Amino acid sequence: MELSAIYQPVQEDLVKVAERLRAVSVVDSPHLSELLDYSLKSSGKMIRPMLTLLCGKLYDYNPDYLLPMATAVEIMHTATLVHDDAIDNSPMRRGRPTVYDIWGEEQAILLGDYLFAEAGALTASTQNLRVIRLFSETLKTISSGEINQAYYAFNLEQDRQQYIQRISQKTASLFSMATESGAALSQAPEESIQILIEYSQNLGIAFQIVDDILDFIGTEEELGKPAGSDLAQGTFTLPAMLLMEYYPEGNPVKRFFGHRDEKDNIQLAIELVRNSAIIPECYQIAADYCTRACQNLKLLPDNANRQSIIDLANHIISRKK
Amino acid sequence: MELSAIYQPVQEDLVKVAERLRAVSVVDSPHLSELLDYSLKSSGKMIRPMLTLLCGKLYDYNPDYLLPMATAVEIMHTATLVHDDAIDNSPMRRGRPTVYDIWGEEQAILLGDYLFAEAGALTASTQNLRVIRLFSETLKTISSGEINQAYYAFNLEQDRQQYIQRISQKTASLFSMATESGAALSQAPEESIQILIEYSQNLGIAFQIVDDILDFIGTEEELGKPAGSDLAQGTFTLPAMLLMEYYPEGNPVKRFFGHRDEKDNIQLAIELVRNSAIIPECYQIAADYCTRACQNLKLLPDNANRQSIIDLANHIISRKK
Repeated sequence: MELSAIYQPVQEDLVKVAERLRAVSVVDSPHLSELLDYSLKSSGKMIRPMLTLLCGKLYDYNPDYLLPMATAVEIMHTATLVHDDAIDNSPMRRGRPTVYDIWGEEQAILLGDYLFAEAGALTASTQNLRVIRLFSETLKTISSGEINQAYYAFNLEQDRQQYIQRISQKTASLFSMATESGAALSQAPEESIQILIEYSQNLGIAFQIVDDILDFIGTEEELGKPAGSDLAQGTFTLPAMLLMEYYPEGNPVKRFFGHRDEKDNIQLAIELVRNSAIIPECYQIAADYCTRACQNLKLLPDNANRQSIIDLANHIISRKK
Repeated sequence: MELSAIYQPVQEDLVKVAERLRAVSVVDSPHLSELLDYSLKSSGKMIRPMLTLLCGKLYDYNPDYLLPMATAVEIMHTATLVHDDAIDNSPMRRGRPTVYDIWGEEQAILLGDYLFAEAGALTASTQNLRVIRLFSETLKTISSGEINQAYYAFNLEQDRQQYIQRISQKTASLFSMATESGAALSQAPEESIQILIEYSQNLGIAFQIVDDILDFIGTEEELGKPAGSDLAQGTFTLPAMLLMEYYPEGNPVKRFFGHRDEKDNIQLAIELVRNSAIIPECYQIAADYCTRACQNLKLLPDNANRQSIIDLANHIISRKK
């Protein structure tokens, strides 16, 4: 299923979200305006704001609340990417130079701060205390996950449970904010909100596992950055964990984490992973999370929005970028 | 006037704020807990939360709202310092190694993000939409000010008006959030809130001017970091601006901004500033802002809290650190 078909029920409102993203860069300072325009124009697939809108449309949809919230979700996502790129010294993202690469680290840190604040201001404009609290708690969760990821960089003493917890914090929590805010702002019944939270937490984990797979099997063109970037940063992801389980000794991941200058081990690890049963096994784990994500969705209103929410789970597994 | 006397009307509640700051570091992850404990224990003079409490006590004071808000104000201040130190690669602050120095840049960036979120969560717990909005707008203002400061680093083409605007954004806005939130959470009349906003904006500008003076005349022991740090970062502050006005040619600031490796110019600039009329002139400008800060305070309730607010303005000018 193509993303364009999944977007269909909220297509018009996503265009309005894109307009609101452009409006954010209308500020007095020409330099800040340029930074905002550049960072928000690089918007990716808009999956998170789409989720907010789809969940909102399942119930009592009010664009005055849902449009700023969907915009806030995308800006928060952008802010985390701007900070990630500064932390990882990444020159490229989505095939374009990063803010870090063009304007340097200090501008990237401060721009990320500004974007968090802008997302907070848009969330506050919904006047809904539940989603306002959710916003701060989500940013706490994401930061904790990232702090732990950075702390455990180049450390092989991590098991699958720690991996799942980490990606649940750093990735799934924002998916969860996207669905919970959309449903809560549309007065969904509490049990339906909980079903959507369960969906998005599992979906977010599946999404990140696929991301971590693609870092091994994607081409630089598809990824918008070199393959093996996670390993290069010392991030121990699921495919690398399975590789360590398959080959506990003489493993290129182990050699690279021990001797970070021996970068040829990254390419060796990529080839070993590609030529093993690891990739199908990782996809199976991701697919299991997608199945779990959808298991209770049948209890929600049966319409095109629900179908898109289900289709998104299937798309996540098949995506190439 | 000593700070300890100024604190007096809110002394007990400031102790409770300090307890709440310690409670923030009670989290599941031992590593994050250590980061939070270290960064929040380094709390400075607590001037900003004191302002929130003093303004709250002028009116209908409710500790359930005022204590979390005062804690949020101090955490937001700490978050900006943690990011500042990462941006400036500062090894020392308040006489102790910075988070950046001990745990590195990535941990400092992510810890700052976590602290912003924690401050946002505490602000949200007041359930007051005005202060929730104020929180996000203040963080936008601070970030804009910092972005402009970084963008204009090592640039002599800045006039006093731009300087005042920049320090108003990066410093006075947080003083303003401290007073406005305290008064608004205590149901102060709108005209009184506006008087306190006017006070804190002028006070914040005076505070930053004195900070910028101390960077030229303070000892390393008083400052907790080497003198001349602003110049070393390329920040063009009021004393340096006046030095350029006094000596437009052959000026060590001009030489250093043009040739950043010629660091002996920093010491030359410090000596020139110290041996000129620049310092008294800067103090006079700061004192004028303090006078302006206090001009309408007589319209507020006449009690010990108001007296402390006035005394703080006088203290700001005489402080040595």
